[in-house]
Amino acid sequence: MSDSDYYCVVLAGGFGTRLWPLSRKGLPKQFLDFNGDGTTLLKTTVARMSKIVPKENIIVSTNLDFYEDVLTQLPDLDPLQILREPAMKGTAPSIMLAAYHIRDINPNASVVVVPSDLVIMDEEPYEKTICDGLDFVSRNDGLLTVGIRPTRPETRFGYIQADDTQVDGMNKVRAFTEKPEEEFAKVFVESGEFFWNSGILMWNVNSFIGIAGECLPDLEAQFNVIYDSTHNRDARRSLLYSVYEAFPRISIDYAVLEKSDKVYMTTGNFHWNDIESWDLLYDYCRKDENGNVTGTGNSQTYNCKGNMVLCNNGKKLIVADGLENYLVVETEDVLVICPRNKEVDFKKYLNDARVRFGERYS
Amino acid sequence: MSDSDYYCVVLAGGFGTRLWPLSRKGLPKQFLDFNGDGTTLLKTTVARMSKIVPKENIIVSTNLDFYEDVLTQLPDLDPLQILREPAMKGTAPSIMLAAYHIRDINPNASVVVVPSDLVIMDEEPYEKTICDGLDFVSRNDGLLTVGIRPTRPETRFGYIQADDTQVDGMNKVRAFTEKPEEEFAKVFVESGEFFWNSGILMWNVNSFIGIAGECLPDLEAQFNVIYDSTHNRDARRSLLYSVYEAFPRISIDYAVLEKSDKVYMTTGNFHWNDIESWDLLYDYCRKDENGNVTGTGNSQTYNCKGNMVLCNNGKKLIVADGLENYLVVETEDVLVICPRNKEVDFKKYLNDARVRFGERYS
Repeated sequence: MSDSDYYCVVLAGGFGTRLWPLSRKGLPKQFLDFNGDGTTLLKTTVARMSKIVPKENIIVSTNLDFYEDVLTQLPDLDPLQILREPAMKGTAPSIMLAAYHIRDINPNASVVVVPSDLVIMDEEPYEKTICDGLDFVSRNDGLLTVGIRPTRPETRFGYIQADDTQVDGMNKVRAFTEKPEEEFAKVFVESGEFFWNSGILMWNVNSFIGIAGECLPDLEAQFNVIYDSTHNRDARRSLLYSVYEAFPRISIDYAVLEKSDKVYMTTGNFHWNDIESWDLLYDYCRKDENGNVTGTGNSQTYNCKGNMVLCNNGKKLIVADGLENYLVVETEDVLVICPRNKEVDFKKYLNDARVRFGERYS
Repeated sequence: MSDSDYYCVVLAGGFGTRLWPLSRKGLPKQFLDFNGDGTTLLKTTVARMSKIVPKENIIVSTNLDFYEDVLTQLPDLDPLQILREPAMKGTAPSIMLAAYHIRDINPNASVVVVPSDLVIMDEEPYEKTICDGLDFVSRNDGLLTVGIRPTRPETRFGYIQADDTQVDGMNKVRAFTEKPEEEFAKVFVESGEFFWNSGILMWNVNSFIGIAGECLPDLEAQFNVIYDSTHNRDARRSLLYSVYEAFPRISIDYAVLEKSDKVYMTTGNFHWNDIESWDLLYDYCRKDENGNVTGTGNSQTYNCKGNMVLCNNGKKLIVADGLENYLVVETEDVLVICPRNKEVDFKKYLNDARVRFGERYS
């Protein structure tokens, strides 16, 4: 097994409304320049992964809407490395497509699938975890997840419950749980058996297609038709278009990981953050000496502490006076000013706006 | 004396930085649509005056920079009714220019000069005050000011001290005072002799040119040359351009009213406001049931009281949560969020921005 068999799939096709109005249907958070320095989570992710797998073995999976954004942000990538999903159907169809695509190139491939919007604070232990994991999946039939040892009873992450049973040094997974209530999260952390689900997944292509095929036989059959019937790229594309829209919208966790008994977990000893909310984003961003995040825009603050001011127009002058622990988010057509705490409900803001204005501000 | 001898000069050439960043060098407050209903102080002023003098006798005095704005906001006016000052030289040269212009059209004209940025709350007593005043100046040689009986020791207005001596029913003016310290303002109000200077001035053209000419003989001489040497509009214009730039920058109050002994005052029994500051603007604007001013933009407020949110993009969605007595002002390139109180120093914000960015945000 050489490094040239190591591949990476960067998932860059999703979007959420949790960071509305900054993150929009048209511009999800992986494409945003939060610190105003030209970097984005997507660019950082690809740069990080290119230290682990050969750059030409990185596949960015996105959908038609974001294809141009990916091209623009990653000019060093061959456009053939960008995989376009014809529709947003969740991670299961998306990862299956990537698996068939890679197997077609290299049937010995071992693949690490990473979300494009994760924050990784310690690069070295991260690299070691991924390299050891790729080594494991290259030798074993199974799906390897990465769990992060929890440092607090976090209710905004999913959890992996590890089993004592080990195979080739990796624990089997007993169960996955969605974002838990706080009382459960506390029990999880105290038990020592539960780990934050990092969203990272490793496998060799034959294992993955075998296991996913068992769980999703209809999808497997259709992908087999597409990839067995022709080697012509355009023909495959048009076959894919003809069926993809009708695929169920389904996540890899729900469709495969929770169902298969060949799922393992390795412990990632690195700091990790999934920017699932405004206060997690605040934790991630650079702050001035008063704890203000003012990465974008030309800001002038007076009597300000602990605020996050984000403005998608880097040239704007932002003057803030007497604000403490507030969040100010400005986009071309939305301005939100609210306390920066967990109780703030952006979904409510957006829903109220939908009631009044339809999808205009979505 | 018929109504056709009544004229009005609307002064729309000035700008201040007190309402920065909303009011800018490029867009002074008389042109702003504070309530988001299409009205502006300039439009309202012209509509109000056209009930008092024939519409064709309204002259809007502005400068080159704002000429297009005036044309756009007042499409019903003949462009010849818009007088362009070649440079901003304060009210003395500007009103003298208007006086010569009107005398040339109608040497029997009686004129009321009004700032374009005043707020008048009671139209009827206002109309009566102006009509009576025009009647007075049509029969008397003098300059008639309008004083407003003060209801509080306001330090942001100038004051007129009235004399007991009356001529044809109007009090003579003893003195003008600039914006006073609070202790003086209190004494002023208690004395009963002091009135807020409304900035409104009435005169017949011959009186005004005579009195202003005594106070400003150099300007008088130059205007005489311009208006006596030719009746050709273009020739006059080029003569005016050749001298205006060298005129002193000087206000009518300082140059004429404070020096002449032919100045009178009539008491205006109407509510009046000069929007000289953000909190005076707050007083002026329409509020919702929680005291929030959210005239422009599509606003959604939660737990908000007593705020003023102004946004020069009417389409923007503004979500504010948990703000009390704040001011949020947004323009294309500046966003200010600060407490809404007298202590807030917008000049400081602007000066700090100038130190960092030059005139970019001025």
